[in-house]
Amino acid sequence: MTKQEIVQQIFQKKSYLCVGLDTDIQKVPKHLLEYADPVFEFNKRIIDATKEYCVAYKPNIAFYEAMGSKGWESLRKTLEYIPKECFTIADAKRGDIGNTSGLYARTFFDKESSGLDFDSVTVAPYMGHDSILPFLEYPGKWVILLALTSNPGAMDFQEIQLPDGDMIFEKVLNTSKNWGSSESLMYVVGATRAERLQQIRKIVPDHFLLIPGVGAQGGSLADVSKYGMNKDCGLLVNSSRGIIYARSDEHFEEAAAEEAKKIQTEMQGFL
Amino acid sequence: MTKQEIVQQIFQKKSYLCVGLDTDIQKVPKHLLEYADPVFEFNKRIIDATKEYCVAYKPNIAFYEAMGSKGWESLRKTLEYIPKECFTIADAKRGDIGNTSGLYARTFFDKESSGLDFDSVTVAPYMGHDSILPFLEYPGKWVILLALTSNPGAMDFQEIQLPDGDMIFEKVLNTSKNWGSSESLMYVVGATRAERLQQIRKIVPDHFLLIPGVGAQGGSLADVSKYGMNKDCGLLVNSSRGIIYARSDEHFEEAAAEEAKKIQTEMQGFL
Repeated sequence: MTKQEIVQQIFQKKSYLCVGLDTDIQKVPKHLLEYADPVFEFNKRIIDATKEYCVAYKPNIAFYEAMGSKGWESLRKTLEYIPKECFTIADAKRGDIGNTSGLYARTFFDKESSGLDFDSVTVAPYMGHDSILPFLEYPGKWVILLALTSNPGAMDFQEIQLPDGDMIFEKVLNTSKNWGSSESLMYVVGATRAERLQQIRKIVPDHFLLIPGVGAQGGSLADVSKYGMNKDCGLLVNSSRGIIYARSDEHFEEAAAEEAKKIQTEMQGFL
Repeated sequence: MTKQEIVQQIFQKKSYLCVGLDTDIQKVPKHLLEYADPVFEFNKRIIDATKEYCVAYKPNIAFYEAMGSKGWESLRKTLEYIPKECFTIADAKRGDIGNTSGLYARTFFDKESSGLDFDSVTVAPYMGHDSILPFLEYPGKWVILLALTSNPGAMDFQEIQLPDGDMIFEKVLNTSKNWGSSESLMYVVGATRAERLQQIRKIVPDHFLLIPGVGAQGGSLADVSKYGMNKDCGLLVNSSRGIIYARSDEHFEEAAAEEAKKIQTEMQGFL
């Protein structure tokens, strides 16, 4: 999917919401457990309920892997069910030596090999350029590189200051921004540090940012939009648990739709 | 598996060799392609040929994922086939926020959930402590944390010097070494930088080190053994391509056995 197509969809739907499909079989409403594939049934209903209000879907791969080969089947069916206009993100946080990252690229981008055909994959930066470049060899596909994450452990390494004054996450941005362009590379930026967005926009004014951590993880959508938005919008703001687990009974779809709509309405005001 | 059991096996087999099962369906000898599961058939023969000479097996998960749900089945069967005395490493380089790392732990450690029951998993450090701790909650299981990797991209971030003189990989070692003990935490250290091993041993004298990159990636076993070994041996040295692709015809097993034996014999001299 091209940057232009993403931007178009954002302004058409007046939304930059990404719905995180972090579907834990242990949290799926009981009445779906009678189906052969409860995770897929749950996702299908969540997608139907939210597709009007969001522009992207982001399954976190851990939730599918945890169920072994069965989980990979649920993931494949879910991906097929997502409407074609929506941007799809494999939240996998992969990264290995070049040779092996090429295999991970095959996993998420090469349908003939794995059955999956995501638009993008999240990648961890620790192993450097050759762990990222193999993903960028697929035309029309995206790498979403971890820069600043929203969890407590982000403080352990990402915010350490280097002798030149930059923090490690800034070094990651500066070093990596020319590995791809803003047409193939996005960044994960934890929304609970909205004050950091100004710093980040100085380094990568044109790149899309994927913002996790609004909602359950505590970030403010107003702050994120104020400090992170650029002329193309340039933001995908993710909400997972706040939407998909808004209710845990047979009315979970309506509750998910309502939550997604609430966020979309707020976003409309910021666009 | 306990540290004591690993050490015992090393001195019994006079080997600290780990065989990397990086099995690419595109490189499996042609005569195996007629089987229903060529990847498993290949691994089975490699395991039979090498189990006498090695103490650990390390499937790199990318190679299995790249084949989707079918690949996960090959992985599950391979893991079941590995002799119980051998230490097993899921080379997955995972890491996510705490909640999600818990799911990755379920993936690799909880057989009931995923069908897999590895002894250990490799984890990337970028997201900090809460991305690692969930793995350590499983008694008898190990985290193998990336410290210094053997690829060209390792230079991008891992060897950057901090104001206190430490390099980032040293900061990772210093910060993380108390998250677990040397009974539950190992480190990945790229063997192509054997001169770094002395630095690393000053910080983590007692931890086991997993050394990739001997062989195809160019490290020297003599250097690694000289600078990395401690009283428990403290080393697992991995070879993947050099062993499993020693030959690509119907004599690949004999060639793999020969390569593994050659390395084991060299190791015997260093123990």
